[in-house]
Amino acid sequence: MTVHELSGDECRSLIESQEVGRLAVIIGGYPEVFPVNYAIVRDRIVVRTDPGAKLARAQFERVCFQVDDLDRATRTGWSVLIKGVVHRLDDTHHLGDEIARAAQRIAPWVGSERRQVLVITPVSTTGRRIGAE
Amino acid sequence: MTVHELSGDECRSLIESQEVGRLAVIIGGYPEVFPVNYAIVRDRIVVRTDPGAKLARAQFERVCFQVDDLDRATRTGWSVLIKGVVHRLDDTHHLGDEIARAAQRIAPWVGSERRQVLVITPVSTTGRRIGAE
Repeated sequence: MTVHELSGDECRSLIESQEVGRLAVIIGGYPEVFPVNYAIVRDRIVVRTDPGAKLARAQFERVCFQVDDLDRATRTGWSVLIKGVVHRLDDTHHLGDEIARAAQRIAPWVGSERRQVLVITPVSTTGRRIGAE
Repeated sequence: MTVHELSGDECRSLIESQEVGRLAVIIGGYPEVFPVNYAIVRDRIVVRTDPGAKLARAQFERVCFQVDDLDRATRTGWSVLIKGVVHRLDDTHHLGDEIARAAQRIAPWVGSERRQVLVITPVSTTGRRIGAE
């Protein structure tokens, strides 16, 4: 078994291959992790959430977004970790129209409206692949 | 699609059904998420890590441990979130012998020694199931 650091390009390509990631935010001094559907707009991660939900209250905060694909049978896989800041999408947001269109294409698993759009602007991206050799 | 809050018993039983979870810690003001193998000792979550790794430097800190099982095809699944405090296992640790034995049974995916054992003592457990009806 080996661990191999992934390049930025590899990280981006792997993130584009998935549709569910995990958004971690800090609430009351504790990290909390939420599975979310997402879209990518340039290097931004876009998620939708219910305006009443815990996640919707987060803004201008340091977060991380993590995506992985792990195979229990072969014990191989990869994990990509993006650290960044999260903002609520509003009318003044940089790339706002493009982000709003992408958000419409995210199909949330839960049937609620999820009108709140959160945008994660990456500060750093790292990734590791765990291989069989 | 519905969201259903899980009871504590349901959360425990679901966590016992998996072997990979995600440990989120706060480093430099940002949450970071690491996939980990784990064991359960009473209500404690036990993970092994490399003493040189980033995770091994975390101690006496607020963390969360999250486990999920999400099916992209049917868009159903569940997620359990445990908030708690993490300690390094040492000779004085409560339930230390029992935890050390459990840690030996965790088979890490990566071949490094992973001699450092971290113990997460839960403060709160919550879970949600996303169903098709």
